[in-house]
Amino acid sequence: MPTPHLDTALSGPILDLERCILNAMPSIEQWLRNEWQTHAAPFYCSVDLRNSGFKLAPVDTNLFPGGFNNLNREFMPLCVQAMMAAIDKICTGARSVLLIPESHTRNIFYLQNLAALHAIMRHAGIHVRIGTLLPEITAPTALDLPGGNKLTLEPIQRKGNRVVLEDFDPCVVLLNNDLSTGTPAVLQNLEQTVIPPLHAGWTSRRKSHHFTAYDNVSQQFASLIGIDPWLINPYFASCGKINFREKKGEDCVANTVDEILHQIREKYAEYGVRKDPFVIVKADAGTYGMGIMTVKDGAQVRTLSRKQRNKMAVVKEGLEVTDIMVQEGVYTFENVDDAVAEPVIYMIDRYVVGGFYRVHTERGVDENLNAPGMHFVPLAFEDTCLLPDREAQPGCSANRFYAYGVIARLALLAAAQELEKSEARIEAIMA
Amino acid sequence: MPTPHLDTALSGPILDLERCILNAMPSIEQWLRNEWQTHAAPFYCSVDLRNSGFKLAPVDTNLFPGGFNNLNREFMPLCVQAMMAAIDKICTGARSVLLIPESHTRNIFYLQNLAALHAIMRHAGIHVRIGTLLPEITAPTALDLPGGNKLTLEPIQRKGNRVVLEDFDPCVVLLNNDLSTGTPAVLQNLEQTVIPPLHAGWTSRRKSHHFTAYDNVSQQFASLIGIDPWLINPYFASCGKINFREKKGEDCVANTVDEILHQIREKYAEYGVRKDPFVIVKADAGTYGMGIMTVKDGAQVRTLSRKQRNKMAVVKEGLEVTDIMVQEGVYTFENVDDAVAEPVIYMIDRYVVGGFYRVHTERGVDENLNAPGMHFVPLAFEDTCLLPDREAQPGCSANRFYAYGVIARLALLAAAQELEKSEARIEAIMA
Repeated sequence: MPTPHLDTALSGPILDLERCILNAMPSIEQWLRNEWQTHAAPFYCSVDLRNSGFKLAPVDTNLFPGGFNNLNREFMPLCVQAMMAAIDKICTGARSVLLIPESHTRNIFYLQNLAALHAIMRHAGIHVRIGTLLPEITAPTALDLPGGNKLTLEPIQRKGNRVVLEDFDPCVVLLNNDLSTGTPAVLQNLEQTVIPPLHAGWTSRRKSHHFTAYDNVSQQFASLIGIDPWLINPYFASCGKINFREKKGEDCVANTVDEILHQIREKYAEYGVRKDPFVIVKADAGTYGMGIMTVKDGAQVRTLSRKQRNKMAVVKEGLEVTDIMVQEGVYTFENVDDAVAEPVIYMIDRYVVGGFYRVHTERGVDENLNAPGMHFVPLAFEDTCLLPDREAQPGCSANRFYAYGVIARLALLAAAQELEKSEARIEAIMA
Repeated sequence: MPTPHLDTALSGPILDLERCILNAMPSIEQWLRNEWQTHAAPFYCSVDLRNSGFKLAPVDTNLFPGGFNNLNREFMPLCVQAMMAAIDKICTGARSVLLIPESHTRNIFYLQNLAALHAIMRHAGIHVRIGTLLPEITAPTALDLPGGNKLTLEPIQRKGNRVVLEDFDPCVVLLNNDLSTGTPAVLQNLEQTVIPPLHAGWTSRRKSHHFTAYDNVSQQFASLIGIDPWLINPYFASCGKINFREKKGEDCVANTVDEILHQIREKYAEYGVRKDPFVIVKADAGTYGMGIMTVKDGAQVRTLSRKQRNKMAVVKEGLEVTDIMVQEGVYTFENVDDAVAEPVIYMIDRYVVGGFYRVHTERGVDENLNAPGMHFVPLAFEDTCLLPDREAQPGCSANRFYAYGVIARLALLAAAQELEKSEARIEAIMA
């Protein structure tokens, strides 16, 4: 399958951006190298990008990526090599890792993600076993996967300040679970290294903290390569003390929506973009595309139907939404046939190891493509994001993917800074 | 083209070895991770291996690898990612690198190697230019390569304690020149980082030092996975004060040959190998397969023809041979059709990034395949060395390549230890 076609009517500015990125490549890589000397890259990360033709920006940064199965199998060695580098930093003696996944064991796609992640780690020479938080799993349980593979989930046990499996005392606990429903007691106060740290879970993480860090990173980057930071950074603001069901805090949301729409309108005018601005209203904590809506006018927020209110009121596993983020919507103008597509970039440590497109036939260019129950078609990137070709035209897939890899790494760097800050906050509370 | 066929008549023991390596994979990777905490991996390295069916061993470790063009182009991203890790360690600010190649600019294969290396570094975001030691190049000179690529060689200039090009003051000097003819004055006492260090060149390097370090590494590794170290380590010894033209020192060589043949015979008896043992006599310093001969009896050394003496007396660029190493010969039982093949593994930093086979139609199973004027056919590995498959049979290419990658990394680790020792020797001399 080909790389998604980018709507050419608006391809001028993004090609300029791509060209800027390509031309500045040695400076960008050197700058990133320097940044990684002072900031520790998250263990792994996926970043959803949107490419509107005039703007290329991250819209979501996932610290517990769940789509390793969607990557191009040909680039498995890249994942393994990056995993070797990643595991080095955790603990040199790291030989055994306990992987703790999400609890939705009936999602075959998620199980395939686990199998892919397991294989990457195994090939990097790590002994991995999978321990589940599900209380109904009381003995090792083998699950069949399409293609004849099996995945074994085992019940985790707490022993003192360690989590273990039967005959398996791991030195590292790797979370592939975003802790949306809180941090389970069994994972608290462990003496083992837990990666990502517990405060990277949605119990404490806030999207607005991430995008505040991204503000900072994207400004530095923009001044490095001499561009308007808006080209890579969506406007956003947040509101607290919301209760959608009880219509509390709606004014803040509606006003924030209008403010951001106003800011976007000014930028659209500056760049001659003839499109309707829109914003995305989403839960500040939480994931899985729940509690997300597209809004084109603040008044819409005040006239939500009961169904819409209920939909916005809770995220995954019934967690109540009290804080929301309003973020500039970035159109996606990448298409595969008539379907809209959104690139997702995968990183292990500070290395871009691949990516794929979420291709969705039933969604619009201004809608979230990672929604509950959605059935996107993953389209693995054919190329890596590592081989830009200055001789080729900007817009060719190698160059587009390199630019994607750069912007995704800016989000990764923002995540690193965000985690430093949340760690500092926790230390301040404990002190 | 398929992976070379391994002669099956003798494939039993090597499959046992491969199986041991596969089974011990997490222990091996953990042990290597630990070793790289205390030993700095060379910047890059290639290792020639021989696989006799009953034995798999390195026979040559090159710290200035010259065949990057022979690697599978599909694995270019692996090279780029490893280069990013390698360059990080040299100096974070490393943005500009001066690459100093060998002076044989008429060898189109070597120029293609330079172009490949240049491309890898460029994609890792490094600004690279090529400075030549050739006095006849007094201005930037563009050389045409097959496929329409160009390579520009520029004259290097000394400015104080730095080497520079016109408008280019690099922070790192990368040697792809093995200094067989001595260390040029222009490269001495530089304040810039020189990698590999000057003492890695053949002016000071000795094969016997490398294999002494490999003795140590292979013994540790053998006890880790519970095998006879001989299965991965060729016997060797060295003789000094040789002058082949004047027939000086021949007794030492002949006696050493007989001793090593005796040791091999005992091992062959132990393992039931029905083959004639042979040794390789080679210059202790130097490369390019010059000054190398296959010997099956010490008496042969005493009755060399004048032509043979002359051939042994000098290596590359006329350097006189005064020290030789006698090394157990390892048969190669890998074949492509009727041609013999020898695997060469490439590493950047501590990562295996690919490999190829030297395929030679006119050489025997007991001959050196990297000889002057030889025209081997490079056959790029179809797979990386990173994805062993425990479900598959030992001997399948993924598993064979993983074993090759492990043995090559043992040689890499030996090179790291060898360089530490030579640095310590230099410091002792300077003190």
